[in-house]
Amino acid sequence: MRICVVGCGAIGSLFAAHLGRLPDAEVWAFDVAEAQVRAINDGGLRLTGTDPVVSRVQARTDGAEIPPCQLGIVATKSLHTESAMLATARVFADGAVCSVQNGVGNEEIVARHAPRVIRGTTIVAGSVPAPGVVHLDAPGDTWIGPFEPKPARMDEVRLLADLLTRGGLRTTAMADSRGAQWTKLIFNAATSPVAALTGLTMGQLGGAAEARELVSGLAAEGCAVADALGITLDDDPMALIDAAFSHAHGHQPSMLQDALARRRTEIDVLNGGIVRMGRETGVPTPLNQAVTALVDGLERSWT
Amino acid sequence: MRICVVGCGAIGSLFAAHLGRLPDAEVWAFDVAEAQVRAINDGGLRLTGTDPVVSRVQARTDGAEIPPCQLGIVATKSLHTESAMLATARVFADGAVCSVQNGVGNEEIVARHAPRVIRGTTIVAGSVPAPGVVHLDAPGDTWIGPFEPKPARMDEVRLLADLLTRGGLRTTAMADSRGAQWTKLIFNAATSPVAALTGLTMGQLGGAAEARELVSGLAAEGCAVADALGITLDDDPMALIDAAFSHAHGHQPSMLQDALARRRTEIDVLNGGIVRMGRETGVPTPLNQAVTALVDGLERSWT
Repeated sequence: MRICVVGCGAIGSLFAAHLGRLPDAEVWAFDVAEAQVRAINDGGLRLTGTDPVVSRVQARTDGAEIPPCQLGIVATKSLHTESAMLATARVFADGAVCSVQNGVGNEEIVARHAPRVIRGTTIVAGSVPAPGVVHLDAPGDTWIGPFEPKPARMDEVRLLADLLTRGGLRTTAMADSRGAQWTKLIFNAATSPVAALTGLTMGQLGGAAEARELVSGLAAEGCAVADALGITLDDDPMALIDAAFSHAHGHQPSMLQDALARRRTEIDVLNGGIVRMGRETGVPTPLNQAVTALVDGLERSWT
Repeated sequence: MRICVVGCGAIGSLFAAHLGRLPDAEVWAFDVAEAQVRAINDGGLRLTGTDPVVSRVQARTDGAEIPPCQLGIVATKSLHTESAMLATARVFADGAVCSVQNGVGNEEIVARHAPRVIRGTTIVAGSVPAPGVVHLDAPGDTWIGPFEPKPARMDEVRLLADLLTRGGLRTTAMADSRGAQWTKLIFNAATSPVAALTGLTMGQLGGAAEARELVSGLAAEGCAVADALGITLDDDPMALIDAAFSHAHGHQPSMLQDALARRRTEIDVLNGGIVRMGRETGVPTPLNQAVTALVDGLERSWT
């Protein structure tokens, strides 16, 4: 079984390192970062945390050097989906490719380059302390299912879920994985931009009544859009958010980390995605539009 | 004619310096900044710009040293209205006091400490390059009228308008000055928080389609609240804003300057005021609530 992970940041590296444990998986990885690719090829991909391992992964900065793969996992930041898929499309000429990226709209891009697509969502969290090393910050489930307009076969979805679960990342194969994706989308879209625009951590957001009200308003708009799309959420996003306000008190959502580092954020696939789908379904999303405009403006101010 | 200016920052200093020109005005000033008070007492208050002058103004950090005055002008940041009025209430025991501050709600505070109150709005702009010096950045009109719940007499309003106009600050006395105040309020509330949260100047805001749409949405909510209050605006705020996008291209609204310096902003009397009046009149103001929550959160992140 040959499988290629596209994008070897924290999430991609977690997937590659866990898959690299399996004797029946030949794991390839694509990334444009030369230091990361060299370190992985020289010393293996080192997973640290509760269940450490050094995995054999063959990494490349040139997609042309990667042989055809049956399965793919796309884990780039959403900004880079298009360019990464352009660079690796040939690898997946007859493969099923799964996005585990944030937000909505990535599968649509993947589908322009791959014959069969899987809609994925993961809540595992990791970080890359040094090239070739990935730390498991928090374990978390992954949910995958056929991407409706250009679906992978269910046997491919189940095969990928089985490989990941055996590798140590518990993954559920579903006929409809939209509920999991939108639950995470709404969670992120309601909290990340408020954190990014204010500089407040999760716990501080929960402690500021007006900020929590805005978070709740953003989540309600997302739920209304999901409802209009006929998506049944896995859970009440606001209940998950309130739990995170308590448990992940000092956590800086990644969009706040991006803002502090003046990196382009994923606003377009988070709140921007909710706004687009709201427009398509006729559901008003004024608050999501407002924070999208503000984060977009913030990014403009850096250039 | 004895008159006291409360708060000798840029706006207060402009008023004091222009009034200090008049042979028939004895001008006093209250401020807590010792360097500013000392410089004014030592060398006079120096107005620079198109029509420079050095005015005789007697400044004090202790309100008890200021004699009773017939007229007062309050020009502190709104955060300091209460403490400044506490310190000077005795000065105005039988006076008429005019707020020329930003936002709404300041007259209500002044009215707790002075027998007769004037609702004022000014669009003159200045800066304080050094203690005792104030520069006229841009000339601009002032509109004043009786504060309805605790009004000054019209003859007092006219007297103050006449003094200011003769001193060089064109001022209009009106029976109802709410239209001028709300026109400026809506202008500021629609632009300032968007600039503060994004870091964009006026011209950059105008050039970002989504940001301009948010500005327009904020202004529309403000107009709806003004309408519910029975206030006739002087002008269409969005037309004024579009003009400012062109003419004041590089201008950083003061709330952006506050945010960059990590100073508390005037959000509470700008968008916060629109939200409060919206609640009183049953007009929804979700966008003003959202930016109030975000700027409030931003301020919290500094402490």
